[in-house]
Amino acid sequence: MKLQKLIKQKKSYLCVGLDPNQSMLKEGETIYDFCTNIIDQTLPYTVAYKINTAFFESMGWRGWRLMSNIIDYLKNKEVFIIADAKRGDIENTSKYYAKAFFEELDVDAVTVNPYMGYDSIKPFLEYENKTTIILSLTSNSGAGDFQMNEMSNGNFLFEDVIKCSQNWNKKGDIMYVIGATKSEQMDYVKKIAPNDFLLVPGVGAQGGSLQEVSEKLLTEDCNLLVNMSRSILNSENPGEEVKNIQKEMKNYLSSVYA
Amino acid sequence: MKLQKLIKQKKSYLCVGLDPNQSMLKEGETIYDFCTNIIDQTLPYTVAYKINTAFFESMGWRGWRLMSNIIDYLKNKEVFIIADAKRGDIENTSKYYAKAFFEELDVDAVTVNPYMGYDSIKPFLEYENKTTIILSLTSNSGAGDFQMNEMSNGNFLFEDVIKCSQNWNKKGDIMYVIGATKSEQMDYVKKIAPNDFLLVPGVGAQGGSLQEVSEKLLTEDCNLLVNMSRSILNSENPGEEVKNIQKEMKNYLSSVYA
Repeated sequence: MKLQKLIKQKKSYLCVGLDPNQSMLKEGETIYDFCTNIIDQTLPYTVAYKINTAFFESMGWRGWRLMSNIIDYLKNKEVFIIADAKRGDIENTSKYYAKAFFEELDVDAVTVNPYMGYDSIKPFLEYENKTTIILSLTSNSGAGDFQMNEMSNGNFLFEDVIKCSQNWNKKGDIMYVIGATKSEQMDYVKKIAPNDFLLVPGVGAQGGSLQEVSEKLLTEDCNLLVNMSRSILNSENPGEEVKNIQKEMKNYLSSVYA
Repeated sequence: MKLQKLIKQKKSYLCVGLDPNQSMLKEGETIYDFCTNIIDQTLPYTVAYKINTAFFESMGWRGWRLMSNIIDYLKNKEVFIIADAKRGDIENTSKYYAKAFFEELDVDAVTVNPYMGYDSIKPFLEYENKTTIILSLTSNSGAGDFQMNEMSNGNFLFEDVIKCSQNWNKKGDIMYVIGATKSEQMDYVKKIAPNDFLLVPGVGAQGGSLQEVSEKLLTEDCNLLVNMSRSILNSENPGEEVKNIQKEMKNYLSSVYA
């Protein structure tokens, strides 16, 4: 995956989440200007950008066009582009979602929801050189409603999702979303997915600790990406903010990777 | 819900799924023409249209604009409009999805995925006069991967989803997706959700039987909507096709509702 190479080059496993809304804009500033400005300031310290489709869809088709334009802006940079779309449907429909994100928008990775099982995710896995990011344990309070429920086989539901999908046929790569607000579950996740690539949201505005996540989940293969959105987008100085984060990450990386 | 009134008026509980793709078009025909032609032919016998967002997203922002235009076309008709989008994210993000579908596109209902729990669906439930359609047991083979797994409390996962969400606070309405290809489970669903509104896909191209679904799931409150997509869109004569379906539905309705 080009992502691991980028992590080693930039000595950073930071993903910046682009979840822009009107309240973040300065007078006269457009969302396009806001996002490209964030990208320009954070690029030296960032290996991936995660575009949250909801914020763009709330502006209708013009929002989708804006999202495409921002993705096009990112394509000229050395970064990994994630569409955080949380899609999934019956196989015949998921084919079209896969086409939307892996061909039409042509991003590197897309988040998918596993509730509908293998055939709902299969069309994404059939793309070589693309990454399918499967929700397993999310960072919100509702993660406790179903994901943390125990199955009759003794596993949690999110654990069943990981264990089952580890065996799925694939041409591309798989990553798992593991919420960083669930500190007590990180050791557990590491046990069931020691070699899998993890995308960890929830650090920053949602309360997760970068130190804890890094100590528990960082491996010598650099199979970790930590996403931060609101704490960077709302910062007075996003460039300075991510520079400090990268410095911290470089330290953690040096402890696992020479 | 305006839907039940429409069902009683039109003596039909048919929902036509708009999942258009290029292979369905005649020479020179656009997708807009194809869809509005299907709508015109089927409208007298149809109470709802279900727009599958994937097929439009596969065409990028132009596809979203096309979807908006088709929704605008439907708004002048006496029908219930469903966006089959299967969205869901952390609460702060789901707010924007709810805004996208209930304000920007302004449809009557949207399908949501329950994997992320209550707070991921709450923003949808806060809209009065709107319907949130929660996936519970879907019609695809992957439904067997997680939805049909038994929890340690003895419930199936899809059952936990129904029972848990029945207690969620709401201003709008809730419906559940129950796949019609799961004939053996219909009696079971009726037991756990006797008064809930059910949206049943999978009749037609996916193999479900209209007779069986109607006999098992139709109630005197007309809490049932049966979706058919490919078998209508691919028909030589969609108008005749849905006329026959409505005739059959009228019979089933007359047996439960005088």
